[in-house]
Amino acid sequence: MVREMSREECLGLLGERFVARLGCHADGETFVVPISYALDGERLVGQTSVGRKVEMMRANPSVCVQVDDVKALDDWRSVIVWGEYRELSAGEKPSVARLLIDKLSGGIGNESRSPRDVTPDRVSGRYEGVVYAIRIEKMTGRAESPNE
Amino acid sequence: MVREMSREECLGLLGERFVARLGCHADGETFVVPISYALDGERLVGQTSVGRKVEMMRANPSVCVQVDDVKALDDWRSVIVWGEYRELSAGEKPSVARLLIDKLSGGIGNESRSPRDVTPDRVSGRYEGVVYAIRIEKMTGRAESPNE
Repeated sequence: MVREMSREECLGLLGERFVARLGCHADGETFVVPISYALDGERLVGQTSVGRKVEMMRANPSVCVQVDDVKALDDWRSVIVWGEYRELSAGEKPSVARLLIDKLSGGIGNESRSPRDVTPDRVSGRYEGVVYAIRIEKMTGRAESPNE
Repeated sequence: MVREMSREECLGLLGERFVARLGCHADGETFVVPISYALDGERLVGQTSVGRKVEMMRANPSVCVQVDDVKALDDWRSVIVWGEYRELSAGEKPSVARLLIDKLSGGIGNESRSPRDVTPDRVSGRYEGVVYAIRIEKMTGRAESPNE
């Protein structure tokens, strides 16, 4: 059976995972892209370079972020978050960058690499180092277990 | 290094996987949701019940579908597809339903269950059995391997 997840369960899954799928929309086009992130209280934070997704979120900051743990088609959890994209100021960046390094280094083969190096956007060759937050404004979660 | 994937590599990843993240947009809201799917030539096909995502795609059929295989933050492949959502006619449904059963039964613990049973939308309790296709109109893929 599919069941609704509680808010605590949703935040628990967001805290466990480090890859999300970010959905944004601008100029009539929807874009879904994987991001690495960390949960920082009631917001998701990430670091990237200026590329397509940043340009789209600057145009339309209303975004949707989906995080899941799919073990099988009848054994999964999925959380969907809606919120507003906001770029952090220079003063806000250091503590969030530290959080990202602490959280994401476990997911990187070579731990000497910083999270800035792990976003697909770096293929563009531009490293403007945007650090951003998406505050959780609305959230839903559903889960299924084979034994339920 | 992050590299661009060829069209053949992109289609290869789409054929391997059975869970995608579908992004749609209507009435000012973006929605990202996991779907099960199969690759059918140059289109993605799926089956679901009428719920939020179907209502949004009927309002705006321009969608984005993202498929990935993330082993680590420096070892991943990701393909993004843009296309138009279209619901299949009664005559088109049987062969696609068969394809979905063949493809998806491997991902289900209890193989006696049909793919119709595995979509999160069934929590709504409505089983109108939409079978749909998203023809690949544009596609990009990027990959990274730790040894490259």
